[in-house]
Amino acid sequence: MARKTPQWEGRIVRVLVCTERKSFVTKELPEARVSFEGLEGDRHAGLTRAADVRTPWFPKGTPIRNTRQFSLVSSEELAQVAETLGIPRVLASWLGANLEVAGVPRLTHLPPGTRLFFPEDTTLVVEGENEPCIGPGRVIEAHHPDVQKLASRFVKAAWQRRGLVAWVERPGIIRAGDTVKVVLPRPVTYVLPSSGV
Amino acid sequence: MARKTPQWEGRIVRVLVCTERKSFVTKELPEARVSFEGLEGDRHAGLTRAADVRTPWFPKGTPIRNTRQFSLVSSEELAQVAETLGIPRVLASWLGANLEVAGVPRLTHLPPGTRLFFPEDTTLVVEGENEPCIGPGRVIEAHHPDVQKLASRFVKAAWQRRGLVAWVERPGIIRAGDTVKVVLPRPVTYVLPSSGV
Repeated sequence: MARKTPQWEGRIVRVLVCTERKSFVTKELPEARVSFEGLEGDRHAGLTRAADVRTPWFPKGTPIRNTRQFSLVSSEELAQVAETLGIPRVLASWLGANLEVAGVPRLTHLPPGTRLFFPEDTTLVVEGENEPCIGPGRVIEAHHPDVQKLASRFVKAAWQRRGLVAWVERPGIIRAGDTVKVVLPRPVTYVLPSSGV
Repeated sequence: MARKTPQWEGRIVRVLVCTERKSFVTKELPEARVSFEGLEGDRHAGLTRAADVRTPWFPKGTPIRNTRQFSLVSSEELAQVAETLGIPRVLASWLGANLEVAGVPRLTHLPPGTRLFFPEDTTLVVEGENEPCIGPGRVIEAHHPDVQKLASRFVKAAWQRRGLVAWVERPGIIRAGDTVKVVLPRPVTYVLPSSGV
């Protein structure tokens, strides 16, 4: 059944991919093919992945379904992070992002289950917030050796502004300049009953 | 990072599978193997499925990721549906369920992203509520030809009591009698900003 849920549009500023294994830093492409495995050629593509520190309820290395195929960041949130860190800019590529999106308010807060529809068939579903870790902080620091403690300050500065991870619901193509339609899931409230069922 | 989220335990009353294509009615098994495709041999197993009336935002038949691998129902909610319909019982198999769970309050209300951990590795993630349609109503009616309009009354009686659909995060085995640990996702609130970002 179709449901009325809030929706609006953003714009894809950059499509980025990481084809190396040594570094997570991404490189800009004009467009990219998307399969059920993720962004073609990207190091995070795959139907499954190994459990890690983000899924501590599984033994490390356990094969689990890969719901972290894509990393998305917001132009506006990156600008906020740069301002907080006192540097001119933080690039999406430094964070290993695959998509930089402009015009979606509070991108990092989009709830799990949010759908992102692209003009050429690709549909992504939001898994959740991508919690910041120190890795991208070190990349930022390497670009600004003159600024104090950037690596460790990054985690706090990027809290709830580091973007999202998402998985592919429908394959297609994504191009820089694409409009992306954002559709929130229906809200669900679960309250424990006071007694019985 | 591990998070403190509410959790409790339920019990698997029945494991059920549908190996036919003509009917969605399921049959009880003592145990079943679970792969990334779903319940082995079940008609809903598969990494992808064809878009249908439940995903009207895609052209019908489009291959999309299958997040409806498992159907779960609650013993307590089934009893409520039976009572509303005025019949002695509604069986999980009549609804095509794969798992009947007891002891989880308001099962159908569990939010998307809820994780279900089984003792022998299987982990399922809740996709969302399984909205009732008339199909199971017809099966119930066939078992009670003496009771009026059961098929059409089912949809209303089963609203928010028809259980959930879920997908496999980690493969394993599920057995009747298993304890299932239920872990709610961290709540996320998304509020549109009043102006700008």
